[in-house]
Amino acid sequence: MAIQIPRGTQDILPGEVEKWQYIEEVVKDICRRYQYKEIRTPIFEHTELFQKGVGDTTDIVQKEMYTFEDRGGRSLTLRPEGTASVARSFVEHKMFGNPNQPVKLYYNGQMFRYERPQKGRFRQFVQFGAEVLGAQEPSIDAEVIALAMEIYRELGLKNLKLVINSLGDKESRIAHRDALISHFKPRINEFCGDCQNRLEKNPLRILDCKKDRDHELMKTAPSILEYLNEASKEYFEKVLSYLTALEIPFEVDATLVRGLDYYNHTAFEIMSNAEGFGAITTLCGGGRYNGLIQEMGGPETPGIGFAFSIERLIAALEIEGISFNDETKVDCYIVSLGEEAKDYAVVLLQQLRKAGISAEKDYLDRKMKAQLKAADRTGARFVAILGEDEIKKNVINLKDMETGSQTEMSLSDFVSEFKKISTGEV
Amino acid sequence: MAIQIPRGTQDILPGEVEKWQYIEEVVKDICRRYQYKEIRTPIFEHTELFQKGVGDTTDIVQKEMYTFEDRGGRSLTLRPEGTASVARSFVEHKMFGNPNQPVKLYYNGQMFRYERPQKGRFRQFVQFGAEVLGAQEPSIDAEVIALAMEIYRELGLKNLKLVINSLGDKESRIAHRDALISHFKPRINEFCGDCQNRLEKNPLRILDCKKDRDHELMKTAPSILEYLNEASKEYFEKVLSYLTALEIPFEVDATLVRGLDYYNHTAFEIMSNAEGFGAITTLCGGGRYNGLIQEMGGPETPGIGFAFSIERLIAALEIEGISFNDETKVDCYIVSLGEEAKDYAVVLLQQLRKAGISAEKDYLDRKMKAQLKAADRTGARFVAILGEDEIKKNVINLKDMETGSQTEMSLSDFVSEFKKISTGEV
Repeated sequence: MAIQIPRGTQDILPGEVEKWQYIEEVVKDICRRYQYKEIRTPIFEHTELFQKGVGDTTDIVQKEMYTFEDRGGRSLTLRPEGTASVARSFVEHKMFGNPNQPVKLYYNGQMFRYERPQKGRFRQFVQFGAEVLGAQEPSIDAEVIALAMEIYRELGLKNLKLVINSLGDKESRIAHRDALISHFKPRINEFCGDCQNRLEKNPLRILDCKKDRDHELMKTAPSILEYLNEASKEYFEKVLSYLTALEIPFEVDATLVRGLDYYNHTAFEIMSNAEGFGAITTLCGGGRYNGLIQEMGGPETPGIGFAFSIERLIAALEIEGISFNDETKVDCYIVSLGEEAKDYAVVLLQQLRKAGISAEKDYLDRKMKAQLKAADRTGARFVAILGEDEIKKNVINLKDMETGSQTEMSLSDFVSEFKKISTGEV
Repeated sequence: MAIQIPRGTQDILPGEVEKWQYIEEVVKDICRRYQYKEIRTPIFEHTELFQKGVGDTTDIVQKEMYTFEDRGGRSLTLRPEGTASVARSFVEHKMFGNPNQPVKLYYNGQMFRYERPQKGRFRQFVQFGAEVLGAQEPSIDAEVIALAMEIYRELGLKNLKLVINSLGDKESRIAHRDALISHFKPRINEFCGDCQNRLEKNPLRILDCKKDRDHELMKTAPSILEYLNEASKEYFEKVLSYLTALEIPFEVDATLVRGLDYYNHTAFEIMSNAEGFGAITTLCGGGRYNGLIQEMGGPETPGIGFAFSIERLIAALEIEGISFNDETKVDCYIVSLGEEAKDYAVVLLQQLRKAGISAEKDYLDRKMKAQLKAADRTGARFVAILGEDEIKKNVINLKDMETGSQTEMSLSDFVSEFKKISTGEV
């Protein structure tokens, strides 16, 4: 039996890959305008990096990583997300010493999680993410959100919902944490074992629990927003006022939290509320993480970022019925007949291509009729016919497949003439 | 201590990543013109795929693969090269049934080999490759070579040498094989153990042996070119005549061989002979492999392709002193002073960016002078200054950093005016 693709992975084939290429172009151009620079980190890292950077207690690290030993006995892990690697690189290359601060980065790469594959969920998937390291100012929080929204907007998504919250600074978080413990402690025995463990360690994560989400104490749990100190409140309000100034609608949702200690201040998610996605679906998640760089061995450095999956973005585009033009179609297909014409076609093809034109011919020694059919199947706008007669007369016949009109042209200036025609100059 | 990047891998950082982006753009555009479509296959495959497709006896499979078990106990391997995955995908997706034949594909992705890292050799590297499946005609062999040469040429490489050979068809290869056995057998005990094993199994690989390359029998070994039958000879000559017609210089080298059984006919390498590369260095290798698809469980399908490493391409560009412009620079840096101006700058920034302009501002609450310095460091062509006075007068001051000239402009139509200026319209 033929060998198959590994479970949970996919080939992206011609016909589908053009969507990916288009998305990448849009993302790249928007990042240029917003002045985020690309960074590429390796597919695998030392396992320790994710234990530290993603968190030892998370599902990702405990259950979902592809971890293996290399031939030298070192434990490596295929990256399950992008932020830890960017943080590692920031520290390793001492980017904190770069005079251009903050450092604004983006990445676009394959990530790996050993999860149960299902519709729209793969074991290898692609994440686009952006990170800003070295600035804590409400305008950069707003910019990061605007960047994500702008990518979606420019690709044509309409049914978007931005949800935002503030986790506050350390002081606010501690006050909230104490309030959570007081709230849950008296009835913690009604919660699952995980939640009971979380109570003292990280009570914020109780709010994330899927098992206990319908417990009545969940609805009445103290909101972080009531525990923000003045500075945190002011910061959050400024972020929101910038979003308003940038005409980005949002909803404040005090239940949007982040489990890890190094998250603080702004947290946000972007959802698609397009019909057909069923329940509201998160497309993008992000937030501020002022403690991460220090955790990675660097100096205290504020950070904020987000990430989204390209697979899920494509699903959202499909549900909203958004499609793109394929820019890679054939401009000119050369049909040739007879030995001399065939040889000439090889050279002509090369000349067209050097002139920037996408050109194709037959490689299967097909007859005239079959070549014309093949030309048609490629969707070529123009077909150039070169037979023995044409070669003798030093001409070529150009057929416009859209209008059906046919023109005899001189062979010697065909390439320059074709270029004018195909760019609409004549 | 901070966690470091795994040995043999590298981060590609801003400043360097722009080269990669530029190369990818050139490659993508040339592939459009030549009508090769992109395919993306997973980073890992079932280990068996490479044992079969690359060859169980090769160094790659025996010593260099990153192989591991996933949590389900399946043996997976990070791809060490691209052709096997493309062939797997071709068979799995039944592309042989696609009416558009041949199928012309390209890929550009990370590959992994556990080798001793050294200058220009990484354990994770990026390969660009092209494959044509479903055609055996001299013009497609010439096209594949022309595609590789065109990429190098368009990027500006000048010191290139194309070396080509033919391994002939099956009949020719058997005749040559017999001749090799007769040649080496009488003195095979003077050769290394590997070569002794190869004698009956695959005598062609003796010619590749690094240990025995100076043995006198190597120089007098029968050349494949003397054993080509008529059809193979004719095929090869036609390929060479197309190369001549396409003005691609070449050298025929009968010692250029390929060890695996499924290689036949055209084999080629492109070397850089730039000074500074030291010994002539192979940039690109390729050839025809008519047996591979069948080996993978598909129908008999001819194939030809090549691959080259982007890392080595970049090394060649550097040695030839070729550099590219960074297209991602800042067009307009906004310097703002005072609360109101700062808030306005956030909105203005967004408007510029929406208009396609790459725009930046300060996020560190810096003073005027420090903002101007920061603007200068980004290499911004224009700096727009917005202070309290300007806000009151509803104007903005635009400074051209190249000429030093300064213009006061109306704030309300600044974005549209700036667009004209920056595109050279006024």
